[in-house]
Amino acid sequence: MANTITIEDIQAAAARIDAHRTPVLTSTAINTIASENSGSPMELFFKCELLQKTGSFKIRGATNAVQLLTDADASKGVVTHSSGNHAQALACAARMRGIPAYVVMPNNSPQVKKAAVKGYGATVIECEATQEEREKTAKKVQEETGATFIHPFNNPHVIAGQGTISLELLAQEQQLDALVIPVGGGGMLSGNTIATKALSPQTFVFAAEPLEVNDTYRSYTTKGRVANTVGARSVADGLLTNLGEIAFSVVIKNVDGVFVVTEREIIQAMELIWGRMKLCIEPSAAVGVAVVLYNKEFHARVKKEQIRKIGVILCGGNVDLVTAASLFEQI
Amino acid sequence: MANTITIEDIQAAAARIDAHRTPVLTSTAINTIASENSGSPMELFFKCELLQKTGSFKIRGATNAVQLLTDADASKGVVTHSSGNHAQALACAARMRGIPAYVVMPNNSPQVKKAAVKGYGATVIECEATQEEREKTAKKVQEETGATFIHPFNNPHVIAGQGTISLELLAQEQQLDALVIPVGGGGMLSGNTIATKALSPQTFVFAAEPLEVNDTYRSYTTKGRVANTVGARSVADGLLTNLGEIAFSVVIKNVDGVFVVTEREIIQAMELIWGRMKLCIEPSAAVGVAVVLYNKEFHARVKKEQIRKIGVILCGGNVDLVTAASLFEQI
Repeated sequence: MANTITIEDIQAAAARIDAHRTPVLTSTAINTIASENSGSPMELFFKCELLQKTGSFKIRGATNAVQLLTDADASKGVVTHSSGNHAQALACAARMRGIPAYVVMPNNSPQVKKAAVKGYGATVIECEATQEEREKTAKKVQEETGATFIHPFNNPHVIAGQGTISLELLAQEQQLDALVIPVGGGGMLSGNTIATKALSPQTFVFAAEPLEVNDTYRSYTTKGRVANTVGARSVADGLLTNLGEIAFSVVIKNVDGVFVVTEREIIQAMELIWGRMKLCIEPSAAVGVAVVLYNKEFHARVKKEQIRKIGVILCGGNVDLVTAASLFEQI
Repeated sequence: MANTITIEDIQAAAARIDAHRTPVLTSTAINTIASENSGSPMELFFKCELLQKTGSFKIRGATNAVQLLTDADASKGVVTHSSGNHAQALACAARMRGIPAYVVMPNNSPQVKKAAVKGYGATVIECEATQEEREKTAKKVQEETGATFIHPFNNPHVIAGQGTISLELLAQEQQLDALVIPVGGGGMLSGNTIATKALSPQTFVFAAEPLEVNDTYRSYTTKGRVANTVGARSVADGLLTNLGEIAFSVVIKNVDGVFVVTEREIIQAMELIWGRMKLCIEPSAAVGVAVVLYNKEFHARVKKEQIRKIGVILCGGNVDLVTAASLFEQI
């Protein structure tokens, strides 16, 4: 499996996957806040992947990977370890092809997450809540069933699938000056960097990351792949992962900047999107919004490069509603 | 001002108003629940007016009424009494035309609602929280300023504006078997009944109402306009109003049925739309969803008439997030 992903791979993925063409929404109120905070006129275009099947963009990559399996491999099923959006996405993608899915989840995963995965017909295998145990258990399932392991982000087919977001966005909203993309493992960031730089080379691609888990920021700055501090946490639980190998090579070459935001900024941005745009985004999706609204370095860059039209990917909406509301009470 | 509203009035309104063309979204998960509950296959198409400017469909009617004023009348401004979505909508519509807006609000209105209206540049005039005081105060403002009173629903221009929702919906999603529309004062219901019966006469139009404020259900059944019990309440605070005169004449002639739902059903439907579709709808918008998911008489009708494709108007999203989450904890 070659690690070089091309625009043709992404275009082929778009034809192959059966994802929603999610709407691009705008808000005059939020444009005004962004423009006031930055001191330069900004128009934001929100790509609503929270309205995607399974509640996040992850179905794009998972479907592409599942559809690309040979019939012989597919018949034995797919396996992954994840307690997040990739788990639901892979379960759903497997059901769409009519093959088994095995999902290894830590035994402390919320009941609602396990139920969601089972709801798509997947088999949930519980294990101790350490990375080592998760990998070991997935390996064991792989050996016993012959299922193919589908990594949540460090997989070229997954990355090509995620890249279809900006393929759509650039067709829906032409002449974007910049695109802001949250980064965790970097599947979404790298796929969409490849697509954007191929189709609209003048569009800047910026990564958005929580300050508390800023491995991508540090990797980008030092040009060496570094990890997050063990035990580092963020309310943006979808972005806790370290940047993957494949993503790293794309990021240091082609991403135009990485910007970080505080936990408070993430929650403020999240509340604004819920309250003004009526969209239940998850904290990870608020990270890009927070950069656009609150990051001073980003604002300086916007001014310097005369960036006006900015695409922001709202990557998912899988969040417990009551927990989310309790976050809003904190700020 | 003639009370007869035609499809031409609605088509002219669509060309006149500058509203968002809101997306129509679908959910496989909710289709499955509806189909299981009803015992017949249902496909739901959600017209997302919560994503409309000002967070509800009300901007359509308000803009149409404001745009239709003569320059001489417009220069003196507009006035209304409302603490809800019409207040924000009229304030926004007035700002779009560059004219003053005066909004009479009860002095116990939440601070956030007053702030929203002021945010659009309108003047808020507070009064005692009785219907009599609200009307008296609005009358006084009218006399002092020469502003035109724009009723929230019992106004043909407002009704024609609201009818543009289904003009769009029927173009976005053809061959709907039925349309389900929440009813309070009946502006949205009557406007969209006129549009639908003109453009797609075979499409059934059904009204959805909270059981606790079921004046439309009783008016429809008895063919006489009756009022809600004084002091009757519902979590769907946008639908507390009695059916207006103009709406009543349309409803008894052309609406194909009125269905009611309990408070618990409204909250359950609301949580489902938030959780599965990631859309922060207000309780009033959940009333149509609740009919489709839970009303037994509705299910019998669906079966009898072989209704499959159903449009549901998600009319607004103006709700306090923390209050909404506390409702979810009750069920």
